[in-house]
Amino acid sequence: MAVYTDVPDGDLRDFLAEYDLGTLVAFRGIAEGVENSNYSLRTTSGDFILTLYERRVAAEDLPWFLGFMRHLAAAGISCPLPVAGRDGSALRHLRGRCAAITTFLPGVWPRRVNVAHCGMLGEAMARLHLAGQGFRETRKNALGPGAWSGILDSCRDGADSVLPGLAATLDTALRRVTGNWPQDLPPGQIHADLFPDNVFFLEGRLSGMIDFYFACTDMLAYDIAVCLNAWCFGEAHDFIPSHGQALLEGYESIRALTGEERAALPILSQGAALRFLLTRLHDWLHTPEGALVTKKNPLDYLHRLNFHAGIKDFHAYGV
Amino acid sequence: MAVYTDVPDGDLRDFLAEYDLGTLVAFRGIAEGVENSNYSLRTTSGDFILTLYERRVAAEDLPWFLGFMRHLAAAGISCPLPVAGRDGSALRHLRGRCAAITTFLPGVWPRRVNVAHCGMLGEAMARLHLAGQGFRETRKNALGPGAWSGILDSCRDGADSVLPGLAATLDTALRRVTGNWPQDLPPGQIHADLFPDNVFFLEGRLSGMIDFYFACTDMLAYDIAVCLNAWCFGEAHDFIPSHGQALLEGYESIRALTGEERAALPILSQGAALRFLLTRLHDWLHTPEGALVTKKNPLDYLHRLNFHAGIKDFHAYGV
Repeated sequence: MAVYTDVPDGDLRDFLAEYDLGTLVAFRGIAEGVENSNYSLRTTSGDFILTLYERRVAAEDLPWFLGFMRHLAAAGISCPLPVAGRDGSALRHLRGRCAAITTFLPGVWPRRVNVAHCGMLGEAMARLHLAGQGFRETRKNALGPGAWSGILDSCRDGADSVLPGLAATLDTALRRVTGNWPQDLPPGQIHADLFPDNVFFLEGRLSGMIDFYFACTDMLAYDIAVCLNAWCFGEAHDFIPSHGQALLEGYESIRALTGEERAALPILSQGAALRFLLTRLHDWLHTPEGALVTKKNPLDYLHRLNFHAGIKDFHAYGV
Repeated sequence: MAVYTDVPDGDLRDFLAEYDLGTLVAFRGIAEGVENSNYSLRTTSGDFILTLYERRVAAEDLPWFLGFMRHLAAAGISCPLPVAGRDGSALRHLRGRCAAITTFLPGVWPRRVNVAHCGMLGEAMARLHLAGQGFRETRKNALGPGAWSGILDSCRDGADSVLPGLAATLDTALRRVTGNWPQDLPPGQIHADLFPDNVFFLEGRLSGMIDFYFACTDMLAYDIAVCLNAWCFGEAHDFIPSHGQALLEGYESIRALTGEERAALPILSQGAALRFLLTRLHDWLHTPEGALVTKKNPLDYLHRLNFHAGIKDFHAYGV
């Protein structure tokens, strides 16, 4: 839940005057997303989302994010479309933050993921990957393998208070994963954070994907590895093969994986588990008390990491 | 900011099937309100608010609250109208909570209160008081003077950690205020929590009032005293006479105050300051760390209490 920056009425009125969106009808903070301040905004022109960019989103990356969303929307992917002000620019400033208005997407994110969701997700992710091929600018994955040892170092003092021996376990896993990290898989633009709360469904169909603020240029199959972690485990952190199968079959119905990509799925999935384990551990240890964020248990991803490390090969994912 | 109870998609679909509201279009948590879980809900029929009632709202009071809102809406007051399910009942259950759907009100609450807001608020509050005269059922003010000593007792151990001497200051104030509390002022239905974030404005007009979950039957002038505290002090907790004057003149343009009501405003305003000081102090001391609520500084209301206690008479409010 997140509204870090409030917007006084006068500031909002002045901000909207920079757009051709008619006059204000309603404005409410949205209790979703943990990185930025999001408002549901209604004007006489329709419904929009106003985002004020907070910590973790680097201002210099915003043109890339907004450009990528604009590119995807133009290619027919249902994602928020940045709305330009009268001067043609969508990236603006409000209350000392970078800010943008994007279109509102209908739909509801799935609180209980089922097999059908996973199939539709796989398809939509593959379409996103194909659509991204036409977007030439690149953005490095700031939370890729090169970043992990630094995050682990920042957690070294507290890690064992979360689970005895955790720091040593993570050291071992980090060496194993980075030492076996694939190098030559097909690259492209990936979402990199396609969790269920970033995917909307409506009347049994996937209606949109949101929150592109971790998107980057990386191996396409890494996006699949993130989703195997995020969509294919049960409440007890047990892998659900039917979810994995639906996800991969959905994906391959649009874009076939290469043999190398398939073979790399277990190590990529270990890497994705490690990435979320480390950032959650960092937040767990460093988020100030009383912050308006639900801290997520990092150990959920230790179970996933162990699963991916223990399987024989990619067939364990249901293909 | 508040979404305490999440609603899985299947539960939401089943819940909506109890209504004639068409099918789901969008569903987002709202980061406003501190007592209940609120969702913005769009169906093919329009826009609504779904509220799940959490702590502090007693289930046995809900029929009164919903009945009062229905009565006010029928009397032309712009407030959320409870929407009945197919069986005629607006008060339902969802995820183990009492729950209700109400209509969506356009407008934006004022982050920076000005004189014009205060005038419109006074008028709207007086209209609410007149409209409430036709609603016969009563509800005792659960946070009236009879409740204050109990709240103070629950804070006695921690009060002086907030401000040295605070417990003794509050004991003295409580004796002074309850000893001089008026008894025979005109009674009626009051909102009792008409803070700026519960009042929406749109294009220079007051467009609606929300959050009736502290409403009760009490002296009408007590509602004015709450608003003098909530709308008429600046950031430095200095009283703003032009706000008080606009509030009272707006109110009296619709309903004239009796001489006794005017004379009682300083003691009622001390009482209202004490009520919010005590409940904020309680929350300050007892809200668990990491709770998803912004704790409000109780001492803001000590400044107000001292102001009301120090004035000569009601003329200090700008009339």
